[in-house]
Parts: sequence; C-alpha cells; structure tokens
Amino acid sequence: MENWESYVRKVVPYVPGEQPQAERMIKLNTNENPYPPAPGVQRALAGFNPDTLRLYPEPTCKVLVDAIASYYGLGSDQVFVGVGSDDVLAMIFLTFFNSGKPVFFPDITYSFYDVWADMLRIPYETKALDDAFEIRVEDYYGENGGVIFPNPNAPTGILMPLDKIEDIIAHNRDVIVVVDEAYIDFGGVSALPLIEKYDNLLIVQTFSKSRSMAGMRIGYAMGNAKLIRYINDVKYSFNSYTMNRTALALGVEAIRDRAYFEETRKKIIETREWTKKELRALGFTFGDSMSNFIFASHERVPATELFEALRREHIYVRHFTKERINNYLRISIGTREEMETFIRFLKEYLKEA
Amino acid sequence: MENWESYVRKVVPYVPGEQPQAERMIKLNTNENPYPPAPGVQRALAGFNPDTLRLYPEPTCKVLVDAIASYYGLGSDQVFVGVGSDDVLAMIFLTFFNSGKPVFFPDITYSFYDVWADMLRIPYETKALDDAFEIRVEDYYGENGGVIFPNPNAPTGILMPLDKIEDIIAHNRDVIVVVDEAYIDFGGVSALPLIEKYDNLLIVQTFSKSRSMAGMRIGYAMGNAKLIRYINDVKYSFNSYTMNRTALALGVEAIRDRAYFEETRKKIIETREWTKKELRALGFTFGDSMSNFIFASHERVPATELFEALRREHIYVRHFTKERINNYLRISIGTREEMETFIRFLKEYLKEA
Repeated sequence: MENWESYVRKVVPYVPGEQPQAERMIKLNTNENPYPPAPGVQRALAGFNPDTLRLYPEPTCKVLVDAIASYYGLGSDQVFVGVGSDDVLAMIFLTFFNSGKPVFFPDITYSFYDVWADMLRIPYETKALDDAFEIRVEDYYGENGGVIFPNPNAPTGILMPLDKIEDIIAHNRDVIVVVDEAYIDFGGVSALPLIEKYDNLLIVQTFSKSRSMAGMRIGYAMGNAKLIRYINDVKYSFNSYTMNRTALALGVEAIRDRAYFEETRKKIIETREWTKKELRALGFTFGDSMSNFIFASHERVPATELFEALRREHIYVRHFTKERINNYLRISIGTREEMETFIRFLKEYLKEA
Repeated sequence: MENWESYVRKVVPYVPGEQPQAERMIKLNTNENPYPPAPGVQRALAGFNPDTLRLYPEPTCKVLVDAIASYYGLGSDQVFVGVGSDDVLAMIFLTFFNSGKPVFFPDITYSFYDVWADMLRIPYETKALDDAFEIRVEDYYGENGGVIFPNPNAPTGILMPLDKIEDIIAHNRDVIVVVDEAYIDFGGVSALPLIEKYDNLLIVQTFSKSRSMAGMRIGYAMGNAKLIRYINDVKYSFNSYTMNRTALALGVEAIRDRAYFEETRKKIIETREWTKKELRALGFTFGDSMSNFIFASHERVPATELFEALRREHIYVRHFTKERINNYLRISIGTREEMETFIRFLKEYLKEA
C-alpha cells in the first residue's frame, strides 16, 4: 500500500439499484413513475436555447425555488433545492448533525442514512421497527444528535400518522428532525404545516417519484428560513452551481402543472390498490403501502426465487438481502398494463411452484 | 439561539461571482466561453426524448466517462465525472485530504480551496506566490497532507512549466497532488501524461470554459484507476445519481467535436493576445496569461474605479478585494467584437481620467 492510501476516506459505498437496459422490460425496481413528466416539460425542452449553456446557471436557483415555494404557499426563503433528495439529505447531514451525539433512525429504512453517517463520521443508532414494521415513537425520546425517517417509510411503504410525527418532533426540540417525504404524494399526509410550529423541522421531497423527473435530479427541503439559510451556506461552500440550466428550466414546468400531477398520482394510487387486491389473492402479505410501491412477502415461495423468476421474464423488482426483510420484494407500481402482465405471470408461476 | 444551532456547521460561504441579467451587457466577469457549445450539443438537445426523464440516469455515467476517456486516450477506469469541477474537487478533498496534516496551496489561487478546507475541517497552509505571482516549488517540499494548485493559476492566468509541476509531484509522493487545469486548453501544456508515472497525481478539468458548457455543470478528474475508484466510492456514498440525463447526453457531444474545439479556443487565444497588446498600450501591466482571462492592473487608475466605470457601461469584469490583488481586474476574454468595445471604452475613459 502506498502511503497516501492511509489518508483515504475508506467507505463501504452505497450500491445503487440495478438499472437494466433491456429493450422490452417491465421496470418495477427503482420506484420510478410510469408516466412521463408534465407536458410543460416537453415544451420547455423544445424552447430551450442550447447557446445559453455557455453561461453559468443562476446560482440561487431562484426560478425553481420560487416555483416550489409558490406551489406550497411558502416564502422562497423556506425552500432549498439540490441534485435529487440525496444531495439535499447529504447537505442536511453535513450542516446539522455535528453534535457528536448519535443520530436516530429506524433499523429498516432508506439505505442511504447509515452510508452518509459512516462517510461523514457521524455517530448513529438505529431503532428497531415493531413487528408490523411501524416506528415506535418512544424510541426517539432519548438524547440524540438529530432524527431522520422517511414517511411513508422505505422500503415498507408504511405511513405514520401526523400526531405521531409531531410527538417525535416535540420530544426533540434541541436537534433537527428531518421527515423524508419522497413518497408522500401517493396517499400520505405531509408534515409540512408543522414547519410553522417547529423551527427544528425539515421536510424533504423530490421530483423523482410523483413528478416523473428521476432523470433530472431535483430534490428540495422546506423549513423555516433560518434552517434553509444554514443549508445554503454549506451548499455554497461545497458547490455553488449544482443545478444546471436544463434542470432549472424543466423543473419549473414539472411542479407547475397541478392537474397533470393529480391525474397521474391518482392513476398510480388506483393501480396500487388493484395490485394489492391481486397480490393478496395470490397469497402475498404486506403492510398497507401509501407509496408508489408494495413491499410484499409470499406465504410459500421465497422472495429470492420469485425475484429470479420475474427477472427471467424481464420483470425487474427489488430484493434486499438485509435481515428481517430478506423475504420481501419491493414492487414499484407501473402502468395498469404493466401490473397486469406482472400479476398474470405470478398467477401462472405460483400455480406451478 | 436555539440549542440545535450550536450543532450547525458554521461556514463563511463562498460568494459566487455576480451573474448580472441585463439585456445588452458585455459579460467578462466569470470566465465563460463567448462561443456556444459544439453543434452536436444542439442536435443532442433536439433529439432528447423528455419522456426518458421519468427514469433515473445511468449512475456510472458510462457514456460521458467513455467519451472523455476516448478523447484523451485513457481507460474509462481513469476518469471520474462530477457536477462541475467544483463537485469533483470537493469529492477529492473529502476522499484524500484526511491525514490531519495541512494541505498546501498558493496564497493567491482559486478562492474555493480554503472554503472547502474550512468546511470539511481540513487544516491547510497557503504558500505565498513570488513577486511575479509565480509558485515557488520549494515551498511545497515540506511535510503536508496534500497539494493542490491550478495551472494556469487563478486569477493570475500564469502558467507553470511542466518540469516544475513534476518537481512538486516528485517531492510529494506520500500524498495526493491535484493539478486543477480548468484553463489549460487556452495555451498551456497539460500534466496529464504524468499520471502514468505518478500514482498520486490527479488532473482536474472542466467543460465550463473551453467546452462552452458552464451552464451544464460537468467537470472531471483523471488519474490512475485506483485513485478514481476511491473518489467514486465516496461519491456513491454522497449522491449516486449526480449527472442528470441531459448532462450525459449533451456532454458527450461537447467533448466529441475536436474541430469545433480547436476553432473556438484558437479564436479565444487570438483575441486574448490582441487584448493584451491593446491593454499594454493603455498602460496596463499583467502577467503573461495562458488562460481565457487577463489579470491586469493600471499604472495610474485604481482597479475599483475602472471596475465601477465599466459597470456603468454594462461591461462586467471581476474585482477581488483580497490583499496583494485588490488593484487588479480579472477580464474574461469575450468575442473580438466585445473586446473591441471594451478597449474602445477604456481608451476614452483613460484619456479623461
């Protein structure tokens, strides 16, 4: 080993979900939206002048921040945007989790929290979900350096009611509490109104799921102006120009169109409920997902076997090897047609299995 | 102050250069390229299917990494891409500068190095440039935690010859040496071939200047495969999907077109040399810039006065308040026509001043 290697920040890197490139596949493995972005995105793309790419983007991302603020009825000083919610969350870890005390999050949750903590040398403690995969609020009462959890939780899809969320925030006024609402638009109730009451609360959302813009990398945080300023200070010290000109121009159109948003999320919710019914009839069990995926286990056939069988048919779902959840599949909700093909295959397969 | 505020990572944020939005202005303040990106970028934009934005981008950025590797005759495992060279450099600081020993860089240099060091709690020592604003290689012989400098240096534009760079690398085999070549394409000689000889060398370049893509945010690092793997490990632990689909699709076209690149950089170099001649005749002094800007001081009229006078004419240049350089203006090279207008104004102004 060279001497310089001893100074390297050694990490166990996050392994992104497989991105298969097959021609005719059904991709239900990374919770993407089966519908294209709002029609305005296409118009913005068509009207985009490539010559402007020679110039830096506007560093405060004002057009996009304003569009998000206006959508939620917030002040523009209450919104921070980043390169996907991963960038937003990484900046939040870097900005706020510096107490030296452990940050608390669930044992089964978004698999990036411990990766960020490890990479940034932030101590953490995971709190076990109960047997129904629900968060026990009392677990978050102890002294800590911050709290973060998704709602609905990943990869379970289970929603926590607002009074429990408020209970966690109220018990943690000395630290920052982050509610990661990547999937909130698929049937959950956002904790956003609580930012007016609690100055230590940050809500994180993303354009990757309900806005059909995973490929554009746009995430955002909402909270009181002081919190947002602190994140911006760190962000400007990291990379002043993160959002490129296409992300700003197209992002504005992706959030502006309420009618398209309502139409597509309604379709996804309906397809999810139909899929739940079908899966239940086939012998699957699962929590009552309020996200754009279902986290399901079969009463008889192991998850790995189903995963491989589906894969052979070019139907991709996600399987995690982690203990407690290694007999589950996370199935993203595609179009109705895709889910019908998926169910049809399972029916056949389970008949023979 | 709330208790949570005591845990905030307090930083003195970098202040990005002014991005004025006036209609008819001459923008010579942030070293952008006056020419649009290569024609292939426009074609790629026109052919871009917005429906694909619903899907995550390919996380390894293979198409773009391959295009850059192919351009320089490297292996794809020798190239790392990020959201502008700022993202690349921030990842390098995070990955390699963990020894606890001070990182060395010049006192007058890219103003982000100390910002990253402060933000990431990395100790550093600046080494004073000599009176001709040149780096003294002996200053970099002492024990340190890493070395970084731009070549040509910013904001002076002064190029260091390759033998001096190799001298610095050879004296620092135990740490990572980063040569930040944002401006190398405007007349310098890249240290890139040295990566074959020195496994501790990283070369960082960008699409923002010579590739006319500041608005797209693409930077890259080149070095031996082991170094690149270490950066990627940290990057995947920070944000797996940084490069959005448009950056990947359009970036490939921006680097592919050698003829357009040669044509535009030749024009910029010619305009720079013409501008130097004119500025000299007007009583300006400056080092022999090999970048797309000139860092100049007038023999009689203070920089701040010239800055304000130009600004009133909607001609924007950059002025730094830092000691030793606060009587200089950094003037980006625009089109020949823009520089003629700029010189014409100065001629009139200096006649009267």
